[in-house]
Amino acid sequence: MLKIFKIGGGIIDNEQELEQFLKTFSTIEGPKVLIHGGGKGASKMLNQLGIEPKMVDGRRITDKATLDVVTGLYAGNINKNIVSILQKYNCDALGLSGADGNAIQGSKRPVKTIDYGFVGDLTDNSINTKLFQLLIDNGITPVVCAITHDGNGLLLNTNADTIASAIAVALANKNEIELNFVFDKIGVLRDVNDDSTLIPKINENLYLQLKEEGVIFEGMIPKLDNSFNVIKSGVKNVCLVHAQNINSDIKTILC
Amino acid sequence: MLKIFKIGGGIIDNEQELEQFLKTFSTIEGPKVLIHGGGKGASKMLNQLGIEPKMVDGRRITDKATLDVVTGLYAGNINKNIVSILQKYNCDALGLSGADGNAIQGSKRPVKTIDYGFVGDLTDNSINTKLFQLLIDNGITPVVCAITHDGNGLLLNTNADTIASAIAVALANKNEIELNFVFDKIGVLRDVNDDSTLIPKINENLYLQLKEEGVIFEGMIPKLDNSFNVIKSGVKNVCLVHAQNINSDIKTILC
Repeated sequence: MLKIFKIGGGIIDNEQELEQFLKTFSTIEGPKVLIHGGGKGASKMLNQLGIEPKMVDGRRITDKATLDVVTGLYAGNINKNIVSILQKYNCDALGLSGADGNAIQGSKRPVKTIDYGFVGDLTDNSINTKLFQLLIDNGITPVVCAITHDGNGLLLNTNADTIASAIAVALANKNEIELNFVFDKIGVLRDVNDDSTLIPKINENLYLQLKEEGVIFEGMIPKLDNSFNVIKSGVKNVCLVHAQNINSDIKTILC
Repeated sequence: MLKIFKIGGGIIDNEQELEQFLKTFSTIEGPKVLIHGGGKGASKMLNQLGIEPKMVDGRRITDKATLDVVTGLYAGNINKNIVSILQKYNCDALGLSGADGNAIQGSKRPVKTIDYGFVGDLTDNSINTKLFQLLIDNGITPVVCAITHDGNGLLLNTNADTIASAIAVALANKNEIELNFVFDKIGVLRDVNDDSTLIPKINENLYLQLKEEGVIFEGMIPKLDNSFNVIKSGVKNVCLVHAQNINSDIKTILC
């Protein structure tokens, strides 16, 4: 079983929580991949540099100055910090942007109504499975940041959930894959304020039912829609799990 | 023959020169490794962030704020820019800090009279030859930035010439190595202002003679001393070469 984990800004912005997560992550046996988002550091850094973050409909526009900041932060500071901590815990991590070894080739998002700037979209052929397989087969844990490239010298800011899903699907051809979205709840809860209402397993029928009942709503719907698409594309399980529980059974398994 | 190239700040700070160098570099056949320094971006960025660069005896002191800036810039911006340009020219480059795959493990420089801060020194066992060999044997070109780690979660700012020499010596065990220091002259010149006085080949006897004559002086002496040490440690040739000439015979070969 190849286990893929995606962590977001919440953990990255909290030094102690990140260290604890990475310590636990390093104890997970077998091949694994880590994908990380960015956190609030980019806005903070843009602010320090006097560059105003550009947002349209709540989404960041990646102009050249923003691209430079996120490239330095995601591919440099955050990625190397994670890799060096994992090395400390004897996990042989190796950081990758999409440009490295042509790991992930995207394309600049076409301008329709909004110009998102240097933002990358992925296709079914974006992932260099040969590179990931080479590293994994040699006991190396790829640590992937949310910067891809277009193969023509352009770096592109890319959604980390999208990258995690694309890697999971691409590697499912040769591996049994479990994709874990690490987030701030212990899984899908019937009552969002009560951890004892965790739903341990959701298949597509139950998912439709939970949507009808209004148990799953708003931002969770695209996340779960995407997860079931990933499963249809060959990934065995998608899990929603809290950072503390990645090496335990407390999670929601989508199957 | 495995060819190793080290480039410094002069090229990195000049967008057109860097692109031209990388285009030529990508045409060099056979296995190769690129090591890059940092350039003036770090001082500029520190300045923009209102952090005063700390210097003692002309050497930068790497405090925590400086380490963060150089990590983002060297391992993020510069490294990923170089890698993405090489990918454009069909060179399958993969960026590495010393933490990635435990490529280069250094140790924090001990405090004697000066505390250099987060600066790494290397030993004979610093280079993970297995990782470099794995990448090279799979047609991948490692692109190494001047950030190492101590194996205990600490990133360390490290001299790029030192890294290049250490990689060359470590890989000389299994490969015939040519180490190229790319710099601003076409090689060692009898008259520093006259390119027609290039000395194409220098062995240790000629080196001693040139030092006595005063042809080689000041900053060139430690560079050439280091180069002859590298040769004694098993590297076949060390070349001093201009960026424009890396794929030609115009250079000084130390042997």
